[in-house]
Amino acid sequence: MRARTMAEDYPTFGLDDEALLAARELARRRLPGVVVVDGSGRPVAVLPSSQVLRFLVPHYVQEDPSLAGVFDEGTADRCAAKLGGQSVRHLLPPPDKRTELARVDGDATVIECAAVMARLRSPLLVVADGDVVHGVLTASHLLEILLPSA
Amino acid sequence: MRARTMAEDYPTFGLDDEALLAARELARRRLPGVVVVDGSGRPVAVLPSSQVLRFLVPHYVQEDPSLAGVFDEGTADRCAAKLGGQSVRHLLPPPDKRTELARVDGDATVIECAAVMARLRSPLLVVADGDVVHGVLTASHLLEILLPSA
Repeated sequence: MRARTMAEDYPTFGLDDEALLAARELARRRLPGVVVVDGSGRPVAVLPSSQVLRFLVPHYVQEDPSLAGVFDEGTADRCAAKLGGQSVRHLLPPPDKRTELARVDGDATVIECAAVMARLRSPLLVVADGDVVHGVLTASHLLEILLPSA
Repeated sequence: MRARTMAEDYPTFGLDDEALLAARELARRRLPGVVVVDGSGRPVAVLPSSQVLRFLVPHYVQEDPSLAGVFDEGTADRCAAKLGGQSVRHLLPPPDKRTELARVDGDATVIECAAVMARLRSPLLVVADGDVVHGVLTASHLLEILLPSA
């Protein structure tokens, strides 16, 4: 069993796609993250939902949540407005601060996939050959393969 | 809208529960993690699926996945055997190396929840009052509340 055949379909966004579209897809499908690719289709990052929250919540509120204020009808509008006009690129940390992308080639075995996820503590693993993204594997999907039900 | 009413039901395991049961639940329900509670029911940690992979995959294979070898019929048995006889406690880092638990009180607002998840970059937030766990919130669930569909 190779990574290519185990990988599951997952939404992919380009660096220049609209940030709001990516955030709404994370929300609508309750995903832990989406795969971000560059102009040639090569995967460059995973954008986790928690990273979008970092973008939406002002830094001083992250440090002191008691400053959060109330959630009212205006909050959703303000969140959408903050994402409006931004691209996916703006949601990611700058390239020199991004963590190593958890990725394997299509030929990787189950244990190789598990090893990469374990080392990087990543919840998502991108399976790709060059700029062809086959899909992703989650840590719990690998556990399902490694630990079939009794 | 308060954290208590937004929180969704989630499996909870005690520190002394069988590691294999927790790992199988992560696998079967494809969860990003389960909540771990101490003897009095107080939440002490989130056990992510990637942490179970860290336990299963030998350290030298994490460093060099090419040493992984093949996945054969014996692999699943060896993984189950490695977890057998261990408790959930053994899967967690030692207490002084655990990261801060992402948790809020039941009264927390949406923005307060988002602030804690953003700061800790956590995919799961535990909602609890003392030793009563109301459930969890995921980052993408919060995005769903903050960014209702257009």
